[in-house]
Order: sequence, then structure tokens, then C-alpha cells
Amino acid sequence: MAPADMGTTAQKPALHWRFDFGSYGEARRFLDQLADLSKRDSYYPNINFGKTYVNVSIDAEGQMELGEREAAFIQEMKAYAAQGPA
Amino acid sequence: MAPADMGTTAQKPALHWRFDFGSYGEARRFLDQLADLSKRDSYYPNINFGKTYVNVSIDAEGQMELGEREAAFIQEMKAYAAQGPA
Repeated sequence: MAPADMGTTAQKPALHWRFDFGSYGEARRFLDQLADLSKRDSYYPNINFGKTYVNVSIDAEGQMELGEREAAFIQEMKAYAAQGPA
Repeated sequence: MAPADMGTTAQKPALHWRFDFGSYGEARRFLDQLADLSKRDSYYPNINFGKTYVNVSIDAEGQMELGEREAAFIQEMKAYAAQGPA
């Protein structure tokens, strides 16, 4: 089969990350840091979380909303997730 | 076709709720209230949220974990969601 012709409807694919933590406290701290990033950049990604994990999704529309700040948002989110226990 | 015989593997179905809010501030307040309920009952449901909505899921395992406190957790969660803007 030939690949579908995306034509002018092509969009950037959604971005997804999964972060696992050693405790609820660490996951909660990360959620609070994400909330601060969201407030600063006025962008609110879709977030799914349980006791010790956080999934973050940024869809094509979100990538447009974030614009040039997208890279900073993603870099800082990853840096926060990589912090050890407080 | 005959219905599947669930036999001894039958589980309670997962419970799902969707709550919509008028603003990010209200959704965030509800998330903080849920976090307090979770801490009190040592139970952490699966939560999915965006700027103005929060989805909460409690699976069969969670219903067992919550035990008799299940009804209280659910009632209080709904009461918090029904609060108007602060």
C-alpha cells in the first residue's frame, strides 16, 4: 500500500513522556514544578498521574501554543523529573 | 452467544468521573483537595487533568484498598468538585 498522502493536513505528532518516581512525595513535587512552568508559559499540558508516576502529553496544538518556548518547557520539565529525593 | 462465565474471576468494574471547571484555578484547587483526601486515606487514584478538567479513575484494586472508606472518598470528592469559584 502507498503511504497516505498527508497533504496540507499534516500536523506535528503529539509528544509523550512518562516519568517514574521513588515515592508519592517526589511525584507530587514534580507536579507542583510542572504547575509553576505552566503558569509561567500559560500552557497546560495533559497530565496523567498515579501514586509514583506522571505522564505528560503535548499535542500539536500545544506545540503551536508554546511556540519558541517549547524547547525550554521540555528541557526544564526533564530537569525537574531528574532531581533526586528532596 | 452465551454471556461469558465470569466465575470466580469477576471483579468490580472500574469507576470513572469527569469534572469540568470554569478556570484553571478551580481545577487546581480541586486537585489539591484530592491530594489531601489521598493523603488521609492513603489511596492514590489515577488522575488525568488538563487546564479546566479532571478525570478520576478508581479501579477494582483501588476499591479494595479503600474498603469501607470508598463511599466517603467518593462523596467528598464530589462535594469538592461542586464548590463554586473561591
